This record gives sequence, C-alpha cells and structure tokens, in this order.
Amino acid sequence: MSTVDVRAAVFTGPNQPLEIQDLSISAEPGANEVLVKLAASGVCHSDLHALDGEWETPAPMVLGHEGAGVVVAVGSEVRDLDIDDHVILSWTPSCQKCEFCVSGRPVLCQLANETAYRHVFFDGKTRLSAGSQEVKSFLAVGSFGDHAMVPASAAIKIRKDAPLAQAALVGCAVTTGIGAVVNTAEMEPGSTVLVVGCGGVGLNVVQGARLAGARQIIVADISKDKLELGRTFGATHAINSKENDLVEAVLELTGGRGVDYAFEAIGLPFTIEACYEAVRRGGTAVVVGQVADGVKISIDPFVMSDQEKRLIGSNYGSSRQSIDFPKIIDLYMEGLVDLDSMITDRIALDDVNEAFDEMRQGRGIRSVIEY
Amino acid sequence: MSTVDVRAAVFTGPNQPLEIQDLSISAEPGANEVLVKLAASGVCHSDLHALDGEWETPAPMVLGHEGAGVVVAVGSEVRDLDIDDHVILSWTPSCQKCEFCVSGRPVLCQLANETAYRHVFFDGKTRLSAGSQEVKSFLAVGSFGDHAMVPASAAIKIRKDAPLAQAALVGCAVTTGIGAVVNTAEMEPGSTVLVVGCGGVGLNVVQGARLAGARQIIVADISKDKLELGRTFGATHAINSKENDLVEAVLELTGGRGVDYAFEAIGLPFTIEACYEAVRRGGTAVVVGQVADGVKISIDPFVMSDQEKRLIGSNYGSSRQSIDFPKIIDLYMEGLVDLDSMITDRIALDDVNEAFDEMRQGRGIRSVIEY
Repeated sequence: MSTVDVRAAVFTGPNQPLEIQDLSISAEPGANEVLVKLAASGVCHSDLHALDGEWETPAPMVLGHEGAGVVVAVGSEVRDLDIDDHVILSWTPSCQKCEFCVSGRPVLCQLANETAYRHVFFDGKTRLSAGSQEVKSFLAVGSFGDHAMVPASAAIKIRKDAPLAQAALVGCAVTTGIGAVVNTAEMEPGSTVLVVGCGGVGLNVVQGARLAGARQIIVADISKDKLELGRTFGATHAINSKENDLVEAVLELTGGRGVDYAFEAIGLPFTIEACYEAVRRGGTAVVVGQVADGVKISIDPFVMSDQEKRLIGSNYGSSRQSIDFPKIIDLYMEGLVDLDSMITDRIALDDVNEAFDEMRQGRGIRSVIEY
Repeated sequence: MSTVDVRAAVFTGPNQPLEIQDLSISAEPGANEVLVKLAASGVCHSDLHALDGEWETPAPMVLGHEGAGVVVAVGSEVRDLDIDDHVILSWTPSCQKCEFCVSGRPVLCQLANETAYRHVFFDGKTRLSAGSQEVKSFLAVGSFGDHAMVPASAAIKIRKDAPLAQAALVGCAVTTGIGAVVNTAEMEPGSTVLVVGCGGVGLNVVQGARLAGARQIIVADISKDKLELGRTFGATHAINSKENDLVEAVLELTGGRGVDYAFEAIGLPFTIEACYEAVRRGGTAVVVGQVADGVKISIDPFVMSDQEKRLIGSNYGSSRQSIDFPKIIDLYMEGLVDLDSMITDRIALDDVNEAFDEMRQGRGIRSVIEY
C-alpha cells in the first residue's frame, strides 16, 4: 500500500517540547475518510493543556486541531467532497447516526466521545505511523502535520475564495466563541454581556455578542493589551480584574443589576464562580473555558433556585459544523466577523514550540502555522 | 378605622412552637389590596425552614404561604376581583411593571424581591398588629391566620366549584413541582426523568412529568413509603437511596446513558450534585429544593463544558401565577392532576405545631389547616 510522508510536530510526553518528525500515512483513505493537505493550523490553548500535562494525553501523538487545507484524496463512500475542495477540519467527527447527531447536537456525538476524544478514529485505530510505531492524531485531527487523514464528516467544505489561514481559526476558537453566544446561550439582541478572558476564544465570544446585537459587552482580563483587543473586537467596557473585584465592577457597570449573560473563556474555577455571581436574576452563565482535570467549582444553590440562575456548558459552541463553518466564513467575507486581526503571528511548523512560549507569556492572539 | 380580628399562628423566634394569638388587621384594604377570609392553608416545608432557624426569619410573624379562601373586601383600584371570589394566594406578588413581570417572569419580580421576600408589603410596611406591635406576614401572605390582607396581584381568582383545601396546595407545592417540569425545564414529551425526593414538591414534579408525557420517571428517596407514593403519582421506577448509590442506580436504569432531566426536590447539596451527575450529555439538572442559608455545592466544570450539561434553578415553578393557578385547577377538575391524595391530614389551626412534628418525622404529604 502506498503511503504519503507527513512532516509533523509530535507530542512525546508532558512538558517536553514537540518533536518535528517524518511520519507516514496511507495514501488511500478509508471508505468514509478524506486525506487533506494542510494549508494552515492555529496553535490553540487546548494544545497547550495537553502539552503541559493538565489533561491526560497519550504519546506519541501529533497535536493540533484547528486546521484548514485542500482535499487530496477521497474514500469510496464519500459523496459530498472532491479532490481540490477547500475544507476546515472539525475536531468532533460526527457519526451522523446517534441520538445527539440526529437531534442536531453533533458536538455530543456518542461515537466521537468514545473515539475521537480519545484520539483514535471510529474504528478505534490510528492512521499515522513512525516506522512500526503507531502515532495518534489529537482529536482525530492532528493538524500540526502537513497532511492529515480525517473522517469525511470532520472535513467541512468551504468556498474557495476564503484564505485558508483565516479559515483554520474557524475550526476551533472562532466557532467555539461565536457559537457559545449564538447556539448555546441563544442570546437575544439587546442583551448585556460579560466576557471573562480576551484570548482566542474570549475575543470570539465578544464578536459573537456584537454580531448578535448585544447592547453592552463588558470584557475582563488581567492584561491591558488583551483588554484593548477586547475593545477592538466590540467590547463597550473593560475591567482589569487584577486591579478590581470582578463581580463588584460588573455590578457597578450595570447599575447593580448584573448582566443577562456571562461567558467564562479562561477555564479557572474562581472566574467561573464570578460569572455565576455576576449574572442578574434569571440570567445565564456559560462555561466555555476548558479547565484542568479534577478542578471543581463551588456555588450557592439557594441563589440558583431563588433567583432562577442558569449555569450551562458550551462545547465547540454547540455547533453543527457543517452548517456553522461555511456560515462564519460567509460572515467573514461580508466583513461582519473579523478573522484577520486574530492572526498575530504566521510561523513555520519548526517554530511551533516558540509559539507555545508566546502563549504561556500571554502574548498575541493566534500563531498560525503555514505549510 | 374599623378592624378585623385575625386568629393566627405566630412565629416568635427560631425553634419555638408557633403561638396562637389574636391579631388585628384593617377592615379596609389599600387601593390595590384585597382582604381574604382563608378557607385552608397547607403546612409546607418552607415554613419549617423558617421555624427551625435555617433561614433568617424576623419575628413576630404569621407563617404560612400556601392558602386559598374567599375575598371579603377589595381595594378601590382593584378591577379584576370582587367580594365572594374564590382565590388562591401567591407568595410572590407581582408589581406588573418591572422587567421581570413584563417579560413573563413574575416570580423574579424586582419589587417582590425587595419587599415580599422580606415579609413586608410593597410599601415596606406590615398589615397585622398585636396591640401596638407590628406583626409581619410570611412572604406577604401569612396564611396561618383566618384572614389575610394581600396585594391584589397575589390573589388569583379560580372557579368556584373547586374545593378550597385542594386549591390551597396549588399556591405552593403543586405549582412549584409541575411548573419546574413544564415551565422551567420545558421538558419534551418522551423524556426520561429523575426526581429526587418524594415530598410535597417532589410528588408534584412526578405528576408534572407524567402530565407532560415523560417516558421514564425514576424517583429516589430514603423512605419506602414515599417511594410508594412516588409510584402512585406516576413514577415508573424507584430507587431507595439509603440502600443504593443514587447515580449508579440511575445509570443502571438508563443503560448507562443517564436521564434527560433530573429534578432535585429536597434541598441538600449531595443530592443536587448527584442530579448533576445523573443527567446525560446535554441533559439538564434542575434545582427545585430550597437549601439552608450558606450551603454550597461542588461541581466539575470540565464535565459541564465538555458534555454541555445544564444546571438551572427553579423558583415557584417559574410560574405566571395568574395563568398557572387556574390552569392547574382545571387539570385537577378534569382528573389529570391529583390533589386529593396530597392531603394526608386535615387539622385545626390550633394543631399546627403537631403538623410540623409530623413533617420532621417525614410522615404524610400535606397537612392542611381548615378554618
């Protein structure tokens, strides 16, 4: 069987730099798979969670899950994709059969939860190898490689006039942020909103809230630079939570009422708790940020029932990727969603470890690897 | 100014028996008030919370908040109520003007939160007195008295052929339970449901779930008698949580999937946490039970975002009392809601302290005081 060479950044264990290795992959996709030549991959905080050992992560594995590229081979049963199609990769392949997929919640796909979330394909196997050793692909994507085999349902076709570096970001941060507002919270126009954390996801929550007609968008962060970015993406007010009590500051900005919706886009227990406290009676706090394994939050259930507060989780923006990816690309092409300003660094694959160093220091929004 | 004598059970301090006293009230209602001659009042667990000092409760105060009776005097501005109308009392008067009332969430009424929830009327004052001493009315109702002055928006007119002892229960437990299913959770027919606690509220969650077409209703309690009651009101499965691990038992009964909706109707932190754990991916846990002041729950926010779980609060069944009370009475008269079996004891006001003893020992469902 012929193979394709894959140059990739490989996770070998927690707190080790990624190793650039030459791997191989079958040149012939399985019946329901496609082979994608990556054009770009964002470097996302979830990769760092894995790299820093905050999540249980198997090795060896190609990290990266926010990619876009061009289809170079399609499996025999794939009917909606052709060679040369431009695609954004989804890190939740959809089995299209389980109760979650059938009811419009592919993010919760039963089969993806049992396989892709453990970094293997629907058949429980890997697709990459280094000699005789099997190599996993992060979330069955592994976009830190110049080629990736993916389930056909994880390759979402988009228009060819959209730039692929920008498109890559739609594969995770953009959809996660905008979707949390539009799909998970179903925020009504005219709402007041708090967004805690102005990283890649938080800024997209901000622009999702602006897109959906929020009347007041308060951002909170401990970095002045990131707060400025929050304003660029649509925030009307900014709270430096290093210098101010977050909940008190929100109450002050809302005349003591609290916000209609609060989105936590960092993944820390005390900021999730603050979001819960900062929403008004009947308001909704949305957990978007990904926390480390084993972390717990503590909340007052009397307030929950008495004030009818809601604390809800959002994964991947509750998206239907095949609907939402092309929609967000259209919004970008119409100038209603800003992807250009998200890309603060364009790098080569060899520089991926430096990109993580930048992220650890809180610099920039997104480094994008271009192949 | 002429007055009416009120014979009432008065709270004089935590852990003291209620004292039966003769109080007085003005015979002339304020412009937007009505005077109601009580026919019946349920004895509810929330009264016990107050009595046992679990909530900060001022004294002296007439307890009781689940009442029904007949209008005997109406204020000058009251247009929708007349003398001789039968009414159920609501413990959340509605100002009908704030953003919550206007948007269909009168339970969250701004003015009620600032006044009735502190046991005073909209003007910040009380209506009852014992000689020169002011006496408060619990939640601006105080149904443990043979007469009560209430804001007109807290007296909901019902059909005259409905028995008032049964109607009284609609004023709290019934609406709280059925409303949690129908209004708060908006449970779809065909859902699978867990109800933890088969007390006055829990049994009404059960019959709400049955009314709304649940396919599986699992009840959990530590009392065999209460589990039997759960089955009487519509449960399909029962878990004795003294003998079984609640979450494991639910997973076993649902093929490992968890339930679509879980309702906590006790008010204990570990059962709220169990409800959160027992719902499936994308499922909703509803906090209905009222917990003591200062209690906290601990939950895993990674599971919340990853599995898109929802933890939401329900107060008074998210009801619009003027709509829901007559609707539930109609359902009762049509035989679709069982109120008769809820009444396990009919007592005189003088026996109210014995009713609390029964409640502390977990006996019966509802004692109803008849005047």
